[in-house]
Amino acid sequence: MRPSGRKLSEMRPISIETGITKHAEGSCLIKVGDTHVLCTATVEEKAPSFLKGTGLGWVTAEYGMLPRATHSRNRRESAAGKQSGRTQEIQRLIGRSLRAGIDRVALGEKQIVVDCDVIQADGGTRCASITGGWVALRLAVNKMLKAGVLKTDPIVDHVAAVSCGIYGGQPILDLDYLEDSEAGTDGNFILTGAKKLVEVQMSAEGATFSRDEMTQLLDLAEAGTDVLVAAQKAAL
Amino acid sequence: MRPSGRKLSEMRPISIETGITKHAEGSCLIKVGDTHVLCTATVEEKAPSFLKGTGLGWVTAEYGMLPRATHSRNRRESAAGKQSGRTQEIQRLIGRSLRAGIDRVALGEKQIVVDCDVIQADGGTRCASITGGWVALRLAVNKMLKAGVLKTDPIVDHVAAVSCGIYGGQPILDLDYLEDSEAGTDGNFILTGAKKLVEVQMSAEGATFSRDEMTQLLDLAEAGTDVLVAAQKAAL
Amino acid sequence: MRPSGRKLSEMRPISIETGITKHAEGSCLIKVGDTHVLCTATVEEKAPSFLKGTGLGWVTAEYGMLPRATHSRNRRESAAGKQSGRTQEIQRLIGRSLRAGIDRVALGEKQIVVDCDVIQADGGTRCASITGGWVALRLAVNKMLKAGVLKTDPIVDHVAAVSCGIYGGQPILDLDYLEDSEAGTDGNFILTGAKKLVEVQMSAEGATFSRDEMTQLLDLAEAGTDVLVAAQKAAL
Amino acid sequence: MRPSGRKLSEMRPISIETGITKHAEGSCLIKVGDTHVLCTATVEEKAPSFLKGTGLGWVTAEYGMLPRATHSRNRRESAAGKQSGRTQEIQRLIGRSLRAGIDRVALGEKQIVVDCDVIQADGGTRCASITGGWVALRLAVNKMLKAGVLKTDPIVDHVAAVSCGIYGGQPILDLDYLEDSEAGTDGNFILTGAKKLVEVQMSAEGATFSRDEMTQLLDLAEAGTDVLVAAQKAAL
Amino acid sequence: MRPSGRKLSEMRPISIETGITKHAEGSCLIKVGDTHVLCTATVEEKAPSFLKGTGLGWVTAEYGMLPRATHSRNRRESAAGKQSGRTQEIQRLIGRSLRAGIDRVALGEKQIVVDCDVIQADGGTRCASITGGWVALRLAVNKMLKAGVLKTDPIVDHVAAVSCGIYGGQPILDLDYLEDSEAGTDGNFILTGAKKLVEVQMSAEGATFSRDEMTQLLDLAEAGTDVLVAAQKAAL
Amino acid sequence: MRPSGRKLSEMRPISIETGITKHAEGSCLIKVGDTHVLCTATVEEKAPSFLKGTGLGWVTAEYGMLPRATHSRNRRESAAGKQSGRTQEIQRLIGRSLRAGIDRVALGEKQIVVDCDVIQADGGTRCASITGGWVALRLAVNKMLKAGVLKTDPIVDHVAAVSCGIYGGQPILDLDYLEDSEAGTDGNFILTGAKKLVEVQMSAEGATFSRDEMTQLLDLAEAGTDVLVAAQKAAL
Repeated sequence: MRPSGRKLSEMRPISIETGITKHAEGSCLIKVGDTHVLCTATVEEKAPSFLKGTGLGWVTAEYGMLPRATHSRNRRESAAGKQSGRTQEIQRLIGRSLRAGIDRVALGEKQIVVDCDVIQADGGTRCASITGGWVALRLAVNKMLKAGVLKTDPIVDHVAAVSCGIYGGQPILDLDYLEDSEAGTDGNFILTGAKKLVEVQMSAEGATFSRDEMTQLLDLAEAGTDVLVAAQKAAL
Repeated sequence: MRPSGRKLSEMRPISIETGITKHAEGSCLIKVGDTHVLCTATVEEKAPSFLKGTGLGWVTAEYGMLPRATHSRNRRESAAGKQSGRTQEIQRLIGRSLRAGIDRVALGEKQIVVDCDVIQADGGTRCASITGGWVALRLAVNKMLKAGVLKTDPIVDHVAAVSCGIYGGQPILDLDYLEDSEAGTDGNFILTGAKKLVEVQMSAEGATFSRDEMTQLLDLAEAGTDVLVAAQKAAL
Repeated sequence: MRPSGRKLSEMRPISIETGITKHAEGSCLIKVGDTHVLCTATVEEKAPSFLKGTGLGWVTAEYGMLPRATHSRNRRESAAGKQSGRTQEIQRLIGRSLRAGIDRVALGEKQIVVDCDVIQADGGTRCASITGGWVALRLAVNKMLKAGVLKTDPIVDHVAAVSCGIYGGQPILDLDYLEDSEAGTDGNFILTGAKKLVEVQMSAEGATFSRDEMTQLLDLAEAGTDVLVAAQKAAL
Repeated sequence: MRPSGRKLSEMRPISIETGITKHAEGSCLIKVGDTHVLCTATVEEKAPSFLKGTGLGWVTAEYGMLPRATHSRNRRESAAGKQSGRTQEIQRLIGRSLRAGIDRVALGEKQIVVDCDVIQADGGTRCASITGGWVALRLAVNKMLKAGVLKTDPIVDHVAAVSCGIYGGQPILDLDYLEDSEAGTDGNFILTGAKKLVEVQMSAEGATFSRDEMTQLLDLAEAGTDVLVAAQKAAL
Repeated sequence: MRPSGRKLSEMRPISIETGITKHAEGSCLIKVGDTHVLCTATVEEKAPSFLKGTGLGWVTAEYGMLPRATHSRNRRESAAGKQSGRTQEIQRLIGRSLRAGIDRVALGEKQIVVDCDVIQADGGTRCASITGGWVALRLAVNKMLKAGVLKTDPIVDHVAAVSCGIYGGQPILDLDYLEDSEAGTDGNFILTGAKKLVEVQMSAEGATFSRDEMTQLLDLAEAGTDVLVAAQKAAL
Repeated sequence: MRPSGRKLSEMRPISIETGITKHAEGSCLIKVGDTHVLCTATVEEKAPSFLKGTGLGWVTAEYGMLPRATHSRNRRESAAGKQSGRTQEIQRLIGRSLRAGIDRVALGEKQIVVDCDVIQADGGTRCASITGGWVALRLAVNKMLKAGVLKTDPIVDHVAAVSCGIYGGQPILDLDYLEDSEAGTDGNFILTGAKKLVEVQMSAEGATFSRDEMTQLLDLAEAGTDVLVAAQKAAL
């Protein structure tokens, strides 16, 4: 029934390759089906100025898409002179989600910047960015622990993200581009390894949804999270 | 237990005054406690270019905050030379939410722009913008129906929004600024008059949340929606 | 003879309501006919850097217009990415005019920012901004005097502004939008309570003017100033 | 008594050299004392879009200052990414003033752009720009008349500008930089050859002024206009 | 003698992998040592407006660098709100170089946009972009030939680029980052397969150079071009 | 054979007038045929922050073109809100070239900013800017030496620039606008007084070039440099 031929609760194949760039403290290339995102984590000695003297650290994220990551070419945001509202919304979501898995006291007054750049897009780029971004973050923190820069591990749990939606009246998991553009309702669920909710973002795009449907989508998201966390563990 | 002294499920007093400006096709000043937002709806003859020839209409929104709507003065976005990511995220949410209550075929190739400008902020400005924006939209559509520009009413239901959160371990409804800044988890629920879900946006800010809590928050949101829809009806 | 039906030297009804927002140190909503402007004054501990060490204070102003303050909707300047030349010219005028009524030594190294946001426009928005802005400034200074932050009152006199023009060959006072768009010559006169001139800005828009006409316009402006200063006093 | 040693009503030496650039339809280098401005007039076939179908022409102006036209170097506005409020205010004034001397019906649906670029600044750059800009405009119109592009001369009179101010309690004419920075009140007077007023802009900078002083300043401005118009005539 | 341990005329290992993204008409990932660039070619039906009606086609290029492509993180240009002068200079060079290998009449009124995004940088990114960009362009043109969109092959020859410099007084080929930052003179040579010069850009960075040295650098560049063209052929 | 009627190796008449503005530490107006550029040098006490504590000085350049320096009017870059890629490329070249003639240790931690503003353009504006910019720089350094601010002369040699190209199959020197727009290959050569190469920038624009042609162009450039250096000496 799905354009992709997948079962309602079937995710796309996932691969996470680490150590992609020699410069970054942590990096990976995550592939969720045909969605490919390069994630790097950069450790900065200084926290943002609004945290000065608080002893708290910060994790932030930036998101970009190569011009031809999509079916037709998109204008380069640097040439346009600004990041779109969509880009800003996504990178704020990634940063917020990753911070939910961090003990900011244990991190101390440092900042980790996670860059997520989409090389090829086929739906679910923000979810792949969070799942892959967490791996890059984990690797950067591991490096700091090994170097003795950090005494305690500030990472409290996995963070992973998956999209769900209602397509043709049926709840489905992990929408690709085609499914996403035709779904009446869709959204993103960010969960921890312990299946606690970090962020829920459901939007009606043409059709509103009921509380029953909301429940079914949450069930799917929990199942998807298991698959994603397993892939994160396998990659490390 | 709440800083505001309100009960867990108690909303702030709501007032909606219509006909605030003589120029706009629809307008109101909505007050949800100390959060005051001026909403206007502008009817434009032309739909955005991406809809040309489709016969479909569009509803979009813009959001702003006067510099001294907040406790300390914020820099004017026009002086800064761009809208913040937060502003863009909010106005995209308002537009998306209002479109969920519109039959775009019945509207036809027109655009209605809803401007929401915060005069005084005390938490929940995006929710007040949606609830008040819907009233401005309703008034503008009424005017078009009366003038015969529209034959069929394109508005299919009320749309209203309320924030919920977990404060001191308890689910609470309609957070003011103080409550919002201390809540471990909070978010926004946009519902129709028929209590269908339009948008759900829950974020962990320091503490993740469980599915049980999610259920309680949805219960609160439904209760709040009844109050808001009643206020919308009273204003019209 | 005037489109508004007013006598040549008749001003529109004026109302000034103070205490409009709970956050600002001083605030008012000024209505000059159908022109409505919300004015707030914000006290900042630090003067601008070019005054560092001089002992002198500063008063500056910013001006904005809500998108639907006008007959047809104007593009939001924050979305356009910059303030128009008109906006900058107006806010520079407001700041300069208000500074003329201040003893900057008595103010000391502080800054007061006056924000003037037009809610509804019907001609004369910059004049209403100055007249109302002065009230907001007066209230903020009163608060500082009461709190002992200031020992001496830095305000030396009222400052008020009114437009004058030549319409159909006749000098008229306080032009509304219709009169303004058809006047051959018009401009703004900013005076103190003692009727000293602070700023004179007369422009020929299609027809030049004579020294005799200039004299008549100055007479009208003096009469208008009396009305405005009385309204300021009544509001305080 | 004046820092420049000039009499109260004495202007600086004026020279206007035409034909400065080979490309522009009209051009001149105007020197008013040590203030040197290069003015060019460009004829464009199309009027701005807001005039489409009206049969009316337009004259507009742009103003700039070379970075080292001033005592210390100013940041290049193109590098800063925007024109300052001061620049925009000045170029709006120049355009408005020049339009006052033009019959826009006789010009027809064309646009003439007058560029005024300050090579060396010593006070009064906006006035020199107007006086010199008018010469460039006159030359461009002459060329169009000669080529038969225009049948009737659209220029109705000379337009010239001079600054006046109150320095040490005395009204003075044509302020240089030193005098300008110390004057309590100063402004610009734009007049036609027939001594009609086009624009009056007087500002109190630290000291308000009386109607008597306003009268004296107008007298000075009329005297200065005679000198400027004579220089324009001599240059053509 | 070289920090890299390479011989004076020894290039780094080169690999070019094609078909990297499913969306682009042509694409490759080129690796020149540790410099990795993703190149895509996008075919657009319309040529730029300045070519309308000329029958001529256009090839243009855009260049970007992921924030953590470098040793320390660079600010994202989309966040900064503009492309740096360096970025613009590089993308102009890439476009100009690729156009030199194209018969624009045979291409017809179309545009091909080549995007070069640096994934990892270790010196010579602009050269790798040109060499890899040519492969992406070749693939896109092959696709158009196969589809019958083009009748004649518009590509007249290979285009490849290599850097040369003078390091420790010796001419060296294909500088990596370390060598580049210490070379007294360096630059880029773009040649065709037939060893004709397309572009020569030599700059003294601290030490000027002689005509004899220029001759030696040209010899090195010719040798390097042979290696690069062979790699291009192998990849296709 | 050349449109200009000049011999293949004949330069346009050159004049360099110094002391053009009273404010700058060094200034000149250079005319190379109909290309006229105003060059000023500004001495700043502080070097750029990246040089702090190194003891090294810096020379940088900015380039601009008046809107009507060209045949048809160009949009003012300050109004466009950014400098074009071409402008940035040119000013980076000017700065790099002038630095090649400076001993940055002898200059010490200061910065000299050279502004080159094109008053009238007829090809070769970047070359005229370098040749004239060097004169302004020399004058500013002379002033510092005279004032004792510098003990040792940091200028090690003249720097001058000339364009060369291949027009109708023949190498020609110092292209004017017409020749430039029709040349198949052209570029710029920057040399010192001792005829050492500082920068070579040759580009094929439609036709590639051979090493033999490169040699002939270098011969022409050396001849042109002699003429330019003589003109620099004559001006000082």
